Amino acid sequence: MNIPARVRIREVAPRDGFQSLEHFLPTSTKLEIIQAMATSGIREIEVTSFVSAKAVPQLRDGAELVAMVPRQGLVLSALVANIAGAKNAVAAGVDELVVVISATEEHNRANLRRSIGESVAELDEIFSVAREKSVRVNGAVAVSFGCPYQGKVSETELFRLADAYARRGAIRIIMADTTGMAVPPQIEQVVRRFQTEFPALALGLHLHNNRGTAMTNLYVGLLNGVSTFDAALGGIGGCPYVPQAAGNLATEDVVYLLEQLGVETGIDLMTAIRAARALEKILGVPLPGQVMKSGPRDPKLASALIGTGPCFR
Amino acid sequence: MNIPARVRIREVAPRDGFQSLEHFLPTSTKLEIIQAMATSGIREIEVTSFVSAKAVPQLRDGAELVAMVPRQGLVLSALVANIAGAKNAVAAGVDELVVVISATEEHNRANLRRSIGESVAELDEIFSVAREKSVRVNGAVAVSFGCPYQGKVSETELFRLADAYARRGAIRIIMADTTGMAVPPQIEQVVRRFQTEFPALALGLHLHNNRGTAMTNLYVGLLNGVSTFDAALGGIGGCPYVPQAAGNLATEDVVYLLEQLGVETGIDLMTAIRAARALEKILGVPLPGQVMKSGPRDPKLASALIGTGPCFR
Repeated sequence: MNIPARVRIREVAPRDGFQSLEHFLPTSTKLEIIQAMATSGIREIEVTSFVSAKAVPQLRDGAELVAMVPRQGLVLSALVANIAGAKNAVAAGVDELVVVISATEEHNRANLRRSIGESVAELDEIFSVAREKSVRVNGAVAVSFGCPYQGKVSETELFRLADAYARRGAIRIIMADTTGMAVPPQIEQVVRRFQTEFPALALGLHLHNNRGTAMTNLYVGLLNGVSTFDAALGGIGGCPYVPQAAGNLATEDVVYLLEQLGVETGIDLMTAIRAARALEKILGVPLPGQVMKSGPRDPKLASALIGTGPCFR
Repeated sequence: MNIPARVRIREVAPRDGFQSLEHFLPTSTKLEIIQAMATSGIREIEVTSFVSAKAVPQLRDGAELVAMVPRQGLVLSALVANIAGAKNAVAAGVDELVVVISATEEHNRANLRRSIGESVAELDEIFSVAREKSVRVNGAVAVSFGCPYQGKVSETELFRLADAYARRGAIRIIMADTTGMAVPPQIEQVVRRFQTEFPALALGLHLHNNRGTAMTNLYVGLLNGVSTFDAALGGIGGCPYVPQAAGNLATEDVVYLLEQLGVETGIDLMTAIRAARALEKILGVPLPGQVMKSGPRDPKLASALIGTGPCFR
């Protein structure tokens, strides 16, 4: 198959994870976690979103946070959903925008309180605001593989949005499985069609684990040559009302699997695991990440980390 | 690829799950859970083990339980590790034995307090006791893909054990990833070698999720034609000292994925999810299964089951 030699992991815990918390994490704590990520070799971080502070109060400190993160080669991105957010993000000094529009009308209305058409109508201005400051734009499509309201998603709609981003100069399309509805044959079909329709454009996958398929979907993406994946330290993210139900792929679990497949990520597994365990302490709830609980395969490394003897039954 | 049209799921929660509990589950409760499994269409159930009641007091009611389960077409198996256990299991009236030996000396000693050689030396008698009562024998190899003590496992040792079972008439070899150390390339290599060396013998995979790879390993097994998988309702099992760290593949998650791949299991997804949710209530702790939290893909079915609106952020 076609597994890439190197994979880019976009760390989304500070945005997709922290937005799901029931409480506001102090900016200094966010900064501490981001620094732990950077220490492990994570380079691309979706640090926040610039959306309504009323809708997502957990991320209301976006501008402040962006100003505080020492760059040290980091690429900072922020999620935006309209021109106001894009202007604020660009003004805050991010390197990249992640513009999001849903693949279904119902989800776009529920999530962004507007139609897909209204979202698309603002794209020209968003790209123009970004271009003025040399800020790159990722085009993200929420519920790309299934909608919690409508169920099935039209592939035509999905690719129409990808095209809307591509024509305006997006550096990458990110297809998001927002509520973990993707299954392997779908990943395969959509990725292949993408590669046919946009042979020169990068594709990223953002995968949630609501139905236990996220890692398998990543693997199928890999087999088909996808080389950018979103992941969140400890597997945080998703719906805050369903504990442990719906997180992102855990960054350290992805690093572990990729390492075992001989794929480079630039991220040190043990350091990432330690960061995930520190995050778990900060958040005070068990996180869905698995390697952070069992440690890597090497029994010495595992027991040094976990501190208990191996379990053998 | 080579995905089978139909997959056999061996339900191991009553053995691999209940043995991991910190308390003894009353026999009547076990029976109730097994009946819920049967109602969902699960047909092959590893109901208990016949091992030292001192070592595994949670399963000390094995004989009683086997006597109580109404057969209704169920295939009941029990795990055994020596001739004494085999005799007890056969006397209790199980349909199949699952004989277990580890692929590494250190694990066999830790788990069974004897050498691999001592375990193998009893196989003739175990098979003979089983044959007398027409009880079929599965040959299981623990830590087939990685050992928490020794690390790497010798493939030569693994296949030597498979051969020891095969020559004596095992109906199936079950390779167990006891502590979730398997990764896709390894699954692929071992499965292919197995098919070359034992073209007429069935292979089952028993996969734990300690490092987030279990479902992907199952998928790779499927792609390579494996058609028997162990799974445990709700994803229970594994080490009781690491909460949620090390369960089996959740039966209902496996059924969900297989259904999405067009593979038949004979198990009704919604009934299995309801059984997993009932099990979660009985055990009183959040279980690692994912589909039981988010429901199937269909928004109507999901919200009927989960009872809350979909989460869309």
